Amino acid sequence: MVVIDVYRATSAIVAGMGAGIEKIIPVATLEEAREYQKSGYKVAAERKGAVVEGFDLGNSPIGFSNPRLAGSTVVLTTSNGTKALIKARAAKEIVVGAFLNQTAVVDYIEQNHENVMFLAAGWRDRFNIEDTLVAGAMAQDLLSRGWTTDCDSCLAAMRLFDMGKNDIKGFMKDASHTNRLAHLHLEEDIEYCNRKDVFDVVPIYKNNEIVVEHVAKTT
Amino acid sequence: MVVIDVYRATSAIVAGMGAGIEKIIPVATLEEAREYQKSGYKVAAERKGAVVEGFDLGNSPIGFSNPRLAGSTVVLTTSNGTKALIKARAAKEIVVGAFLNQTAVVDYIEQNHENVMFLAAGWRDRFNIEDTLVAGAMAQDLLSRGWTTDCDSCLAAMRLFDMGKNDIKGFMKDASHTNRLAHLHLEEDIEYCNRKDVFDVVPIYKNNEIVVEHVAKTT
Repeated sequence: MVVIDVYRATSAIVAGMGAGIEKIIPVATLEEAREYQKSGYKVAAERKGAVVEGFDLGNSPIGFSNPRLAGSTVVLTTSNGTKALIKARAAKEIVVGAFLNQTAVVDYIEQNHENVMFLAAGWRDRFNIEDTLVAGAMAQDLLSRGWTTDCDSCLAAMRLFDMGKNDIKGFMKDASHTNRLAHLHLEEDIEYCNRKDVFDVVPIYKNNEIVVEHVAKTT
Repeated sequence: MVVIDVYRATSAIVAGMGAGIEKIIPVATLEEAREYQKSGYKVAAERKGAVVEGFDLGNSPIGFSNPRLAGSTVVLTTSNGTKALIKARAAKEIVVGAFLNQTAVVDYIEQNHENVMFLAAGWRDRFNIEDTLVAGAMAQDLLSRGWTTDCDSCLAAMRLFDMGKNDIKGFMKDASHTNRLAHLHLEEDIEYCNRKDVFDVVPIYKNNEIVVEHVAKTT
């Protein structure tokens, strides 16, 4: 299963691991995050789009790609993406996906799995467009390599991506997140998240930790 | 709330009431349907796309628009659409929608409600494209009359409808229902269901019965 929360949790994870973070430990609550902080861990905590008071980092992919974090373990709690990862725990394997590692994920799925499900995390248990676009992009890549689907939500996601792919930002201008995030001045983060194939890493969530199982070879 | 199961339950209801059926009683099980049949009711029963043995009618909108049914009460059980209606029961008012009565529904909602939710019934509790297209069509009509939405699933539905509106049949060729229904030779029914604004009726589901509350005046 590929979990996608593109604005911004899974993009932050991909960017962070692409820049050398060794391990990310997702936790559900701020209490757990504070416990880890007391034990000396680097901890990132986001609620309502902002860095939680008392923490240095939220879920900004730009913050996560800080080279000073290379080699470290980071504990992460977010309002939405962490929940999606935890919901996915019954899956055989959980891959963290974003535009930032689109092709690396598709390569990895093709090489290691016979079938795949995309979990577009959405927002507060509701459908959202941005995560659906990433799922549609990856599904389209797999279909172009001979994979098939008989799932209408997958077809719809691919068609939405087709409509939006040449101007993701413009396509998103009416979407709910745009209003939700506008006052937080996250434009730079959003543009960063919309970039395709910046990183070759495929982060895998297992045993309550995210590690990089796979760095694609750029041929 | 507007309930949509366009292939074919809500299209059949709209076609039937457009052709003069006075009342439709949706029931969940074949057992209930048989009880009504024993009491002398006209009963329509569909499972797996076909008319159930022992019944004269399934959920074909063409069958439902038979003028011999005008003025009568028809009991209806289907594998999918009836369930969606029953799920919607907590809503303030339940309107039965299809392409066949698209504009009549939009007029009615505009005249009688401040907000509306579309229940695209889907198939076996999953998303499907066809019901989403009808919801998108109606939502687009409302937005063109000044209504607003901040719901991503509504935006996505409108965009899918935009992509498909000039060739619904072609747009649907990969959809799951196409494979599911192909061997049943329902092409004629499907083409019928894809026709817009054939009827001006707005069927309303209340007190466990569907009645026509509103016949639009064609100006």
